[in-house]
Amino acid sequence: MIVVLKSDATEEQIRHITEKTEKLGLKAHVSRGVERTIIGFIGPEDALRMIPLEVFPGVESVIPVLSPFKLVSREFKKQDSIVKIGPHVKVGDKKIVVMAGPCSVESHENLLAVAKKIKKAGATVLRGGAFKPRTSPYDFQGMGEEGLKILSAVGKEVGLATITEIMDPRQVELVAQYADVFQIGARNMQNFSLLREVGQTRKPVFLKRGLSATIKDLLMSAEYILSEGNFDVILCERGIRTFETATRNTLDINAVPVVKKLSHLPMVVDPSHGTGHWGYVASAARAAVAAGCDGLMIEVHDNPEEALSDGAQSLKPENFATLMNELKAIAQAVGREI
Amino acid sequence: MIVVLKSDATEEQIRHITEKTEKLGLKAHVSRGVERTIIGFIGPEDALRMIPLEVFPGVESVIPVLSPFKLVSREFKKQDSIVKIGPHVKVGDKKIVVMAGPCSVESHENLLAVAKKIKKAGATVLRGGAFKPRTSPYDFQGMGEEGLKILSAVGKEVGLATITEIMDPRQVELVAQYADVFQIGARNMQNFSLLREVGQTRKPVFLKRGLSATIKDLLMSAEYILSEGNFDVILCERGIRTFETATRNTLDINAVPVVKKLSHLPMVVDPSHGTGHWGYVASAARAAVAAGCDGLMIEVHDNPEEALSDGAQSLKPENFATLMNELKAIAQAVGREI
Amino acid sequence: MIVVLKSDATEEQIRHITEKTEKLGLKAHVSRGVERTIIGFIGPEDALRMIPLEVFPGVESVIPVLSPFKLVSREFKKQDSIVKIGPHVKVGDKKIVVMAGPCSVESHENLLAVAKKIKKAGATVLRGGAFKPRTSPYDFQGMGEEGLKILSAVGKEVGLATITEIMDPRQVELVAQYADVFQIGARNMQNFSLLREVGQTRKPVFLKRGLSATIKDLLMSAEYILSEGNFDVILCERGIRTFETATRNTLDINAVPVVKKLSHLPMVVDPSHGTGHWGYVASAARAAVAAGCDGLMIEVHDNPEEALSDGAQSLKPENFATLMNELKAIAQAVGREI
Amino acid sequence: MIVVLKSDATEEQIRHITEKTEKLGLKAHVSRGVERTIIGFIGPEDALRMIPLEVFPGVESVIPVLSPFKLVSREFKKQDSIVKIGPHVKVGDKKIVVMAGPCSVESHENLLAVAKKIKKAGATVLRGGAFKPRTSPYDFQGMGEEGLKILSAVGKEVGLATITEIMDPRQVELVAQYADVFQIGARNMQNFSLLREVGQTRKPVFLKRGLSATIKDLLMSAEYILSEGNFDVILCERGIRTFETATRNTLDINAVPVVKKLSHLPMVVDPSHGTGHWGYVASAARAAVAAGCDGLMIEVHDNPEEALSDGAQSLKPENFATLMNELKAIAQAVGREI
Repeated sequence: MIVVLKSDATEEQIRHITEKTEKLGLKAHVSRGVERTIIGFIGPEDALRMIPLEVFPGVESVIPVLSPFKLVSREFKKQDSIVKIGPHVKVGDKKIVVMAGPCSVESHENLLAVAKKIKKAGATVLRGGAFKPRTSPYDFQGMGEEGLKILSAVGKEVGLATITEIMDPRQVELVAQYADVFQIGARNMQNFSLLREVGQTRKPVFLKRGLSATIKDLLMSAEYILSEGNFDVILCERGIRTFETATRNTLDINAVPVVKKLSHLPMVVDPSHGTGHWGYVASAARAAVAAGCDGLMIEVHDNPEEALSDGAQSLKPENFATLMNELKAIAQAVGREI
Repeated sequence: MIVVLKSDATEEQIRHITEKTEKLGLKAHVSRGVERTIIGFIGPEDALRMIPLEVFPGVESVIPVLSPFKLVSREFKKQDSIVKIGPHVKVGDKKIVVMAGPCSVESHENLLAVAKKIKKAGATVLRGGAFKPRTSPYDFQGMGEEGLKILSAVGKEVGLATITEIMDPRQVELVAQYADVFQIGARNMQNFSLLREVGQTRKPVFLKRGLSATIKDLLMSAEYILSEGNFDVILCERGIRTFETATRNTLDINAVPVVKKLSHLPMVVDPSHGTGHWGYVASAARAAVAAGCDGLMIEVHDNPEEALSDGAQSLKPENFATLMNELKAIAQAVGREI
Repeated sequence: MIVVLKSDATEEQIRHITEKTEKLGLKAHVSRGVERTIIGFIGPEDALRMIPLEVFPGVESVIPVLSPFKLVSREFKKQDSIVKIGPHVKVGDKKIVVMAGPCSVESHENLLAVAKKIKKAGATVLRGGAFKPRTSPYDFQGMGEEGLKILSAVGKEVGLATITEIMDPRQVELVAQYADVFQIGARNMQNFSLLREVGQTRKPVFLKRGLSATIKDLLMSAEYILSEGNFDVILCERGIRTFETATRNTLDINAVPVVKKLSHLPMVVDPSHGTGHWGYVASAARAAVAAGCDGLMIEVHDNPEEALSDGAQSLKPENFATLMNELKAIAQAVGREI
Repeated sequence: MIVVLKSDATEEQIRHITEKTEKLGLKAHVSRGVERTIIGFIGPEDALRMIPLEVFPGVESVIPVLSPFKLVSREFKKQDSIVKIGPHVKVGDKKIVVMAGPCSVESHENLLAVAKKIKKAGATVLRGGAFKPRTSPYDFQGMGEEGLKILSAVGKEVGLATITEIMDPRQVELVAQYADVFQIGARNMQNFSLLREVGQTRKPVFLKRGLSATIKDLLMSAEYILSEGNFDVILCERGIRTFETATRNTLDINAVPVVKKLSHLPMVVDPSHGTGHWGYVASAARAAVAAGCDGLMIEVHDNPEEALSDGAQSLKPENFATLMNELKAIAQAVGREI
């Protein structure tokens, strides 16, 4: 941590700061420059974050040097983490994992039809929401436990691992019975009670970036889960909120190389939410693979006109199959497979 | 709802849309213009939102006409709502309500000292966090129930109503025992499980706008609470996330007149989070009163240097008292009191 | 400037950096901490900004310590600057200056009618665009020199100073003949050719913040003008572009205290562009005065239904007069007058 | 254009609107629904944009139906436009065009060295700035005409077309003598004087998206150039400004498919500015090609440590050559070549 002093900071103010920080076991290095005096601290930066140095007299600004995340960082673990989902799927390995399925589970029949088609096209994980976070209380809120049962049954029948969203810490036990991965949605990325709760399980967690979360915020939320002992975390870029309205969200493709640099955790991209329009999904999915992602989550619906949620951004199974073929060629071009 | 068709939409595509929507009880008005054909729908727009018209062949875009919120809207209720907190405080009335206190409850002694001073300066509600949503799992997370007890005791001792943040639907019963108002923080604005849970109580809810929530999103989250039967909701503007980094958040002062136009619910402003620097709090607080807010929430700490959280944005009691004097004059200038 | 090294930076890499920087006359202080080594530089930071230290081997990040602006800063000049417009108007003094008038000059008759009314209500500067920056090439582009003539004539006739927008460095001489202040619009805030050109005149410049400009960017653009010798710069907050769509722009009210802290230049607020809807202008204008601005720029049109541009955000003269009365009370409450 | 009326709009207010609009030659269709009355207009929408219907009594909101751009739209021209640069380069054709070179022209020797290397790696256009828009007046501002001469000479010597930025309408004639393409930078995207001026030439224009410009804004700025008669416009996505600070800008990869859908103009991506860090450039460049762009603009410097501007985001020639090989495979995978 570095403290930049005001140009008129006094010796007494400097002493006040260094005395305070030395009590916390930090060694202060004072550098007196022409225009500014700077104090650099060596030692446990966590301790320093506990005191609001910004309000000490004479302080102009406080600049953190170290990242606040630890367990999720590349420094903590150099090699890429691989997260296993069920017996067969590995996220973070050479093979790019594709998770697909409808936004919401709507019926056994519909889900089964889609599941067979996406499996044939090369997906290995089936997605489907049973608890839906909807902006309006009057919109379809998901089938609840009934939806979980269908998801689980279809997954087994077709031979796909399953992932579903969890919104409430009280649902952890229930969802754990049916799905292979807990999905935490963008709106709950900083629902810390929920993060702690799934952190105490030993089931993989799929953590989506919040609409206005920086990449550092995303990593800090992952840190909550790892700090509870669960290291099987998969990160997901799904678009952020910006001023642009031509798409539902702005897919931050830069997040792929940034996360791969800062963290050892696998990084998945969701081009369906990242664009919000099925017509743009293929382009964004291809970009994500080329950028170096470890997986994709794509909404596929047998009949988007009838979808109870997110129909506008769902691919039809035949378009999904075409896309998977394109992705194979791109994956190969970047030394991966799909 | 209005559906704009592509310039090359066919009659068959138009028929496909109108047949579909008529089944839902909607009457379709087709207007054929020179450059575009448009279909306007008359009838229950909620039904329409259930089907993703965007993906129907021939459709270029879908434009909603009605706001998706109902119970929170001015159309539903013309006159301003007044929310009562405890026996004496009314939010939304002529008197602007000031809620003040430390970010976190840290000890009975500290809280008592601050509570006396803010009461003397004119505040009527005491704030203090017992459960703290912190970006880092390694930062101070609040005192928990012990903090709630202190808050409640100090509130009674000094004669101030109390407000505290709730983060988890499982905490509702506990928090309800100790505090007069549930505060829902920015990070939980779309924690729909939590919204429903507090919606089922009959205690006032103080709902803060999310970092990337539009004003409509905020109103839709309030709608969740009202739709469960709890009409005692107070909205709060606390700054949004933008590209500007000179302040912690960008206080959206426009939200005050916009909310007052769209909704009957009272609107409070939090200049502490809205700026993130104590040096800017007074300016933002004055602006909020002048803009027409119904209340303020301000962080005050007896010794910001020792604060366990948000020290940088906390006012000292003496600065708070000075500010309250300035606010009185402004309140009077806009026909209010404080 | 502080350079944070990677955790595995070598001694040779450190030497490479210090040798390079010492050639530029900078003294390097190397602090070796447990987790990171840091190099602090003492000396002319401008020199350092010339070399891209980020790309040097071993460097993790580069953190500037000093602000890049000089002449506009409070450190350069402690007391508030007062900018004189014409013989009678002073911006930055106790009296808050109100600039008002239509978006565009449309005719002598219309402008005269408005000018008389705004003067009566207390405005001292008449605004009116002759060259209009419009998003569409097919929209009204302004009356050009004819508009300048009308503006100047009406200003003289009624006894108001005048301000008008300049968009092109080739217009400087022309506009200088007719108006008392050059207005640089948001879209041209970083039109550096134009900034230099007006910097070489001795006429006041009214510089509006760009839609996505940080406060530092605004100050750096002002620095361009001052660095050419023209110190008569007035800054203007007019709303920034965010994700919120309920208003045309998000008025960054925080910019008022931030600019007043960082700079000695006067700060004006434009609530018309800052909200984009006439119904919100009064609220935002009151907030701006309460926040501590030195002036306001408000669009007023005699008949907004007939306005050739920005009708939606223009006040009618009678609403403007009512607002001016409210503002007087608020100005008094914050120790100013209007 | 559709006008949504307030729920309490009167018949007289409706008549006032329709009388007004019929004078402009527009036919009004009034649809009376249960909750709202709507007026749809058939006829020349441009005429309607001239009057601020939002301020008419009884109007709640005004919703445009047609896009405001014409000549740049896909509706105006179905097939992709191909822009020729010099005798050999075509942008918008099957072959993806790579433009590369240093941020600024610094010397004949340096530019020649880079030019030879990028040509060998497959680039066909040489970039290099002679007039640099720098945030600070104290930073290197470019070599001016001397830089143009070097760029032109090196281009001819090596056999590369040339592109350079133009910042001032007065420079058009000068720059036209030396470069094959006018580049308009992000900060000047809405410098309408400059747009008109290059629109009157018959030289290709490379138009970069502004930091806070929507895709529609970008297309409207292109419309300015086409409306002056110059149809040889190349659009460029170079990152937008968001709240994310881990990268210099947020590359909006979605802009590629959106622009290809809305417009016939070729679309280039600049991954150097789009990320701001050389370490992320390759990932973003691969993503852009996979997403379907028609070209790339990449900063390459022989010795980034010595670069006078943008060193941090410049690739070394050897890294550029490696990237070009990766891009070839991806281009092939999406049916293009490079």
